[in-house]
Amino acid sequence: MTHTDRCGGLGDVTDVVERARRAAPVLAGMGRARRAQMLETMAGHLEQARAELVATAAAETALDAAVLDAEVTRTADQLRMFADVVREGSFLETTIDTAPSGDVRRWLLPLGPVAVFGASNFPFAYGVAGGDTASALAAACPVVVKEHPSHPRTCRAVLAVLRSAAASAGVTPDAIGMVSGFQAGVELVTHPDIAAVGFTGSVAGGRALFDLCAARAVPIPFYGELGSVNPAVVLPHAAREPETVIEPLLTSMLTRGGQVCTKAGLVFVPADAEPLVDRLRQRIATAPHPLLLNASIAAAYRAGTAKRAVLDGVEVLCGDGSAAATGERGPVPPVLLGTSVSGLLDEGNAELREECFGPYAVLVRYDSVAELLTALPALPSSLVAGVYATDDDLPQARDVLTTLVHRAGRVVWNQPTSGLRVGWATHHGGGYPASTAASTTSVGAFAIRRWLRPSALQNWPAALLPDELRGADSGARPGLPVRRDGRLSTETTGHEP
Amino acid sequence: MTHTDRCGGLGDVTDVVERARRAAPVLAGMGRARRAQMLETMAGHLEQARAELVATAAAETALDAAVLDAEVTRTADQLRMFADVVREGSFLETTIDTAPSGDVRRWLLPLGPVAVFGASNFPFAYGVAGGDTASALAAACPVVVKEHPSHPRTCRAVLAVLRSAAASAGVTPDAIGMVSGFQAGVELVTHPDIAAVGFTGSVAGGRALFDLCAARAVPIPFYGELGSVNPAVVLPHAAREPETVIEPLLTSMLTRGGQVCTKAGLVFVPADAEPLVDRLRQRIATAPHPLLLNASIAAAYRAGTAKRAVLDGVEVLCGDGSAAATGERGPVPPVLLGTSVSGLLDEGNAELREECFGPYAVLVRYDSVAELLTALPALPSSLVAGVYATDDDLPQARDVLTTLVHRAGRVVWNQPTSGLRVGWATHHGGGYPASTAASTTSVGAFAIRRWLRPSALQNWPAALLPDELRGADSGARPGLPVRRDGRLSTETTGHEP
Repeated sequence: MTHTDRCGGLGDVTDVVERARRAAPVLAGMGRARRAQMLETMAGHLEQARAELVATAAAETALDAAVLDAEVTRTADQLRMFADVVREGSFLETTIDTAPSGDVRRWLLPLGPVAVFGASNFPFAYGVAGGDTASALAAACPVVVKEHPSHPRTCRAVLAVLRSAAASAGVTPDAIGMVSGFQAGVELVTHPDIAAVGFTGSVAGGRALFDLCAARAVPIPFYGELGSVNPAVVLPHAAREPETVIEPLLTSMLTRGGQVCTKAGLVFVPADAEPLVDRLRQRIATAPHPLLLNASIAAAYRAGTAKRAVLDGVEVLCGDGSAAATGERGPVPPVLLGTSVSGLLDEGNAELREECFGPYAVLVRYDSVAELLTALPALPSSLVAGVYATDDDLPQARDVLTTLVHRAGRVVWNQPTSGLRVGWATHHGGGYPASTAASTTSVGAFAIRRWLRPSALQNWPAALLPDELRGADSGARPGLPVRRDGRLSTETTGHEP
Repeated sequence: MTHTDRCGGLGDVTDVVERARRAAPVLAGMGRARRAQMLETMAGHLEQARAELVATAAAETALDAAVLDAEVTRTADQLRMFADVVREGSFLETTIDTAPSGDVRRWLLPLGPVAVFGASNFPFAYGVAGGDTASALAAACPVVVKEHPSHPRTCRAVLAVLRSAAASAGVTPDAIGMVSGFQAGVELVTHPDIAAVGFTGSVAGGRALFDLCAARAVPIPFYGELGSVNPAVVLPHAAREPETVIEPLLTSMLTRGGQVCTKAGLVFVPADAEPLVDRLRQRIATAPHPLLLNASIAAAYRAGTAKRAVLDGVEVLCGDGSAAATGERGPVPPVLLGTSVSGLLDEGNAELREECFGPYAVLVRYDSVAELLTALPALPSSLVAGVYATDDDLPQARDVLTTLVHRAGRVVWNQPTSGLRVGWATHHGGGYPASTAASTTSVGAFAIRRWLRPSALQNWPAALLPDELRGADSGARPGLPVRRDGRLSTETTGHEP
């Protein structure tokens, strides 16, 4: 490990992918225990570099240092969680069918080098060391990141930390590399040695890359998180208790300047909920005016809120996104528009049903829960939906929840939509355009599955079987859950892998 | 249940998909126990109709009645296996994260109505009641089958059996429906209410449908098994024992007239293995001349073997596919071509690396295991690969197996490639073009996952949780494996779901 390596890892697509290709058997062959240690070393090095990383990202993204500091912690914890996932081993789905019908042993193998496109809004948690990278490395897939044009210095700083950590964990630093520029991104997803793509970003950019992946001679999976207009539904009884519901609603709308994929963009309230609406308007009118992540997001915010404000059946309840912005990133005022269910679903008002980053939401007044139940299925799929209710709402809540479960990957009860716990049960995904791959998650333990594919070995001599697929006829291999002849067993001897 | 229903289920796309859409909540809401019973009822009804089904399929496909009879059994057993999978319940991946960081509960839900395109070569096991249908129904997804033009009467007979069985199990017969004709297939995969597609067939047809699915406004997964040229590798010591290796090789090449996706299409033998080659030629020269499945497969066989026979560096070892065929389906003579590794990889000989249905294979002579190891990675991905070896081959076998594991979904040791055990550990898939979705299988218990997507419920009141996600804080829900706070548990009380 030299100082030269600290500046390495960034290059042209051919070179960086070739390095990743050579790193693949190293990662796949190093064993789970050492791979888990590599992830933990990366987590530790990220935290050691915390001050530099936070300062760099704060300058590039205009996000608060305290917010970014917490994001470094989340990112490091995410790497550690995947270390646990790797050690626990059930992600391999080890499955052994034996006599009398022959011996077949199935497990999951890494796909090979993968490409990762991080997001503008979470420079760490969805960045170079973010969820896609952590889960791919956990799966033993080398990662080639596309540098984000909105925070390139942060990307390079994180890349250097990860490569240094990989080297000090005894692994090739080429477990992770990076390419820069729009054209490099196109070349990356069409490179024959890239086996899959993880993406977090816009619908336009994501769909273009999805189309490239599907059009390849050998198509590859494109795991894209594109755009999401998340509904938050205030049920009738809860609407009569503005002070209870207003905090999760405001958090859902305004966290990180409304620049999160889990923002509540459509807030459904009963048509007679004027006290709640008034209270929301007051709070939003006095909310801080954030700087946005970059000039193009700020320009899209100004244009997007202004355009939506003059649509048929839309009223401006609060704010004027086109005004008051001095710098190229703002600060911008929060905007709350209002409409009816028919206004929301009006064919001419498609933009109301599209995502717009920034502190903006549309308040949708519904006449009855019956009307609500016709509106929700007409919305595009989303990452998350929130329901705000009291006990008195329970009888009506069931149908609303059932409807939302079909439109959103995660359905939240009386909590902000914007928080996302990173754990085993996490699902961060949904139907298109929230995700291009409804069957996968971009966050949480199950994200590792994106980067794996099954492999079956039939009638192999024991001497040639991989360690994880060996074992006495009667039991599991030590330290690894196994399904043997259909029976799932978690009995392990507690040996470390 | 009336006799009218026995003729029902076939209609235009709009009508049949609408029926499937209405059946979706019925299947999803009926509970696992009843869904398992439905699958078992279908299995039983198929076996009751065995004589009629076999006679119909034998007339349409030219396959032996005994072979078709066994296929009915396999198809019924496959339905029963999925009944077991549904009852066992771990396919739901129930995952519960609780305090201190909040309550998130994840499980898998059905995607909704799906389309299934069966294969020409297995009218039952990959047909209307085949693996895709069985796994989709197990997942609670209604199925709309595209009738196969090569055996339409068999399709209709099986459809009638399944609909009748669904009705007698107390489920709507519209759990399964069918459409007919090329244009209907196109309309089916582009219908907004179809959530995914399962396909077994040709590269050309499959890629066209894959492209349609990817180009939709809302893209959907296309699980296609297209074409596969499966390698069978005879290692040097095994090649000196022709009588040992010849049986699995012949089975791999000639089963069902060489019309299986797992046929060994490339047989690698050492360059000095003339006794083995001579023995293979003798056996193939005296093998039966099968009738092929339909006129277009027979025509493609005649043209395909003739075209390949005159490629540079190719010799005809046995048979002449263009000759001797009288009827439109044959009978056709088996054909064995021979070439070298360089002949196989010659840029002008691309057809040698493409699938050709029928009793045909290419014998590839390799000079050394080192040469073999350069050739195998240059092949397209395949469903299966076979290795034939003695104990003396073990030292060289490891590298060969490792290489093959990267090119084939299943790697078989000293058994025919053509058999496929249907169980928990089954993997029937691979890289493109063997499969358009390397992370999924079309056969075996894990095939159910194709038709599911995760759903997370955060902070829901217990009263509103689905049964499978409830349970005391300290344990699993009875009868269902669960992962709670990261810890997988298979402790159940044994209650039926």
